[in-house]
Amino acid sequence: MMEYWIRRALEVVKTPFLLFDLSVVEKKYLEMKAALKKADIYYAVKANSHPRIISLLARLGSNFDVASKGEIEKLLALGVDGKRMSFGNTIKREEDIAFAYKNGIRLFAVDSEMEVEKVAINAPGSFVFVRVETDGADADWPLSRKFGTNPEHALQLLSYASKMKLIPAGLSFHVGSQNLNPESWKKAIEIAGRVFKKAMRSGLNLFLLNVGGGFPVQHTKPIPSMEEIGKAIEEAIDENLWFVHNLKVIAEPGRYMVGEAGWLVTKVLLKSERSGEKWVYIDAGVFHGLAETIQNFEYEIRVLGKEREELEEYHLAGPTCDSVDVIYDRIFLPKSITLNDLVCFINAGAYTVEYNTRFNGIEPPKMVFIEELTEISIEEKIKTRVLD
Amino acid sequence: MMEYWIRRALEVVKTPFLLFDLSVVEKKYLEMKAALKKADIYYAVKANSHPRIISLLARLGSNFDVASKGEIEKLLALGVDGKRMSFGNTIKREEDIAFAYKNGIRLFAVDSEMEVEKVAINAPGSFVFVRVETDGADADWPLSRKFGTNPEHALQLLSYASKMKLIPAGLSFHVGSQNLNPESWKKAIEIAGRVFKKAMRSGLNLFLLNVGGGFPVQHTKPIPSMEEIGKAIEEAIDENLWFVHNLKVIAEPGRYMVGEAGWLVTKVLLKSERSGEKWVYIDAGVFHGLAETIQNFEYEIRVLGKEREELEEYHLAGPTCDSVDVIYDRIFLPKSITLNDLVCFINAGAYTVEYNTRFNGIEPPKMVFIEELTEISIEEKIKTRVLD
Repeated sequence: MMEYWIRRALEVVKTPFLLFDLSVVEKKYLEMKAALKKADIYYAVKANSHPRIISLLARLGSNFDVASKGEIEKLLALGVDGKRMSFGNTIKREEDIAFAYKNGIRLFAVDSEMEVEKVAINAPGSFVFVRVETDGADADWPLSRKFGTNPEHALQLLSYASKMKLIPAGLSFHVGSQNLNPESWKKAIEIAGRVFKKAMRSGLNLFLLNVGGGFPVQHTKPIPSMEEIGKAIEEAIDENLWFVHNLKVIAEPGRYMVGEAGWLVTKVLLKSERSGEKWVYIDAGVFHGLAETIQNFEYEIRVLGKEREELEEYHLAGPTCDSVDVIYDRIFLPKSITLNDLVCFINAGAYTVEYNTRFNGIEPPKMVFIEELTEISIEEKIKTRVLD
Repeated sequence: MMEYWIRRALEVVKTPFLLFDLSVVEKKYLEMKAALKKADIYYAVKANSHPRIISLLARLGSNFDVASKGEIEKLLALGVDGKRMSFGNTIKREEDIAFAYKNGIRLFAVDSEMEVEKVAINAPGSFVFVRVETDGADADWPLSRKFGTNPEHALQLLSYASKMKLIPAGLSFHVGSQNLNPESWKKAIEIAGRVFKKAMRSGLNLFLLNVGGGFPVQHTKPIPSMEEIGKAIEEAIDENLWFVHNLKVIAEPGRYMVGEAGWLVTKVLLKSERSGEKWVYIDAGVFHGLAETIQNFEYEIRVLGKEREELEEYHLAGPTCDSVDVIYDRIFLPKSITLNDLVCFINAGAYTVEYNTRFNGIEPPKMVFIEELTEISIEEKIKTRVLD
């Protein structure tokens, strides 16, 4: 089916492009709502901030996790109220906090004393939650080192927030992007449960648990279903946080919500053999959509029309004059792959166009929506009728 | 001196920004002209393609090494003729080759049969040079793996180009970006000399030697002077290519020409201590100008006003919600570094803003020219006089 839309898209745009199916986002949103009945969903805008995606999710009732003033402005322009946003970045510009506060945002993430102070000054009386570190095991993209603090320090920060006249709401964690093990969320919730108990004893009544993101997308490895992960989370909450009155649960899916909705479509610019090594170069690379492959993120790849051919080993690289722009150093591609063949990166809707640069003066992939192509087809039909 | 201009810039722009001194580019251009008397300079636009830089170099008489249609269009719009451009990317879109040809470009790099064919079809009769691989030893940023081929294959490609009615002009090589050893150019020119001789015997009269880029910029290690490198190159040419009639030599400086002209000025957003580790977060990171630090590129760093303070060890990270956005994992910074301190990356004029993304909705560093600030000051003076 995607193949049909790729051909249609090629009538109006050149490669590289990210062909995107909004109906998949709707399906993923509803799937998560069903699997996590107790949770409010805050879509992590950074995964893909295209206005069409934001508008759809806003219509479906989603809330939003934002990282900067730039993202907040984008959402406000689309009619999303600040009350539906959580400022989840633990490294905020002071003027961004003030801007958020002015526009109705009352929920902020922190993991350090200084950030508590910045929020207290620029968004007085707001709710804060503290990000607790996890070990990032079982995740393709661990997020632990840079963010989060240990449970004892988290408690101190919540007390400090209270002293600074903020409302200490609770905890967040992030099990790491593309986490393949439902037990990771369980373990993190157990830790959260212990912190909630200790907080209660010291007079702080926490009520917010932010289970973060990390919900996986199908790539080359088998992944657990949203249902399984939801079950693990809900069981862990019942077991470890049963004593919390009116617990508010938040989830922040990013990759999960948009990953499977997009295919990155690229074209072969060159095939060569030098010193016995075979290379294929395509018109997008690590500076033009495929940044995550630098950290060995493995996409499923399809070369259109050559799916059943015998494979051989290649280096796969991008179009720039930069040696870092090598996508995969060892990958199996069809033997006959050649100039102008279409190379598709499956389930590449998240963290691709958001990393776009214009390095080497090269146009990065634009987004093409299947819905747009349908609109064009209607227009074309009208035109044809007029001409007939 | 730069400190004065940073304060002046802060009156009109917010961090992060790349403060840029065009007079340094002029100095570097003239220095290279003096050191490499026999060479035509082709500035590698990809290092920093800002129109002010291009215009200045065009005025000084520089030619340009371009990587894509996007760069060609930019130069044409600034009045640079196609005859002054070399299309140095060995991975070109066919439509870009045709566009280049239509706009007067007649010089193209190749390192594979398919690229020869693409040039033959889309830029018939043009000059081509073959990129020969080097080992990239002594370079901070080797460029060998992805580009270039061995000398025997280079000869075959030159013959093939001739058969395809192109003009086989000669060879290029690249010793790797930020190369610290003048001997690297010597070694490459020795290899080139042998290929030129063999080519002559087989009836191909090569006349173009492109010595590439890689000329270093002062960072944390001592570097050889342009004079030393120029001497090494000229001696190697005299020794190995004395038999070539009317030899045309080309150099493609990128980093060298603009690196020392710019300081990336950032601001501390957060300082924290978690689990015994100290972190400093600034408002630019690997997605906003500091991409090269992912490969451990070491900048000299200055924290303004705290240059003489005792240092201690920190992690230094960027402002995004991405764990990859860590600039240095171990760096020594002043003990008292804190919120709003200015952290400057010295000699960061090359390969910084060109890698800009808008990831996390964060505004990347813009360029601020000292010349612009002077213009503003004159305007302000005029205003003041009018008001008085």
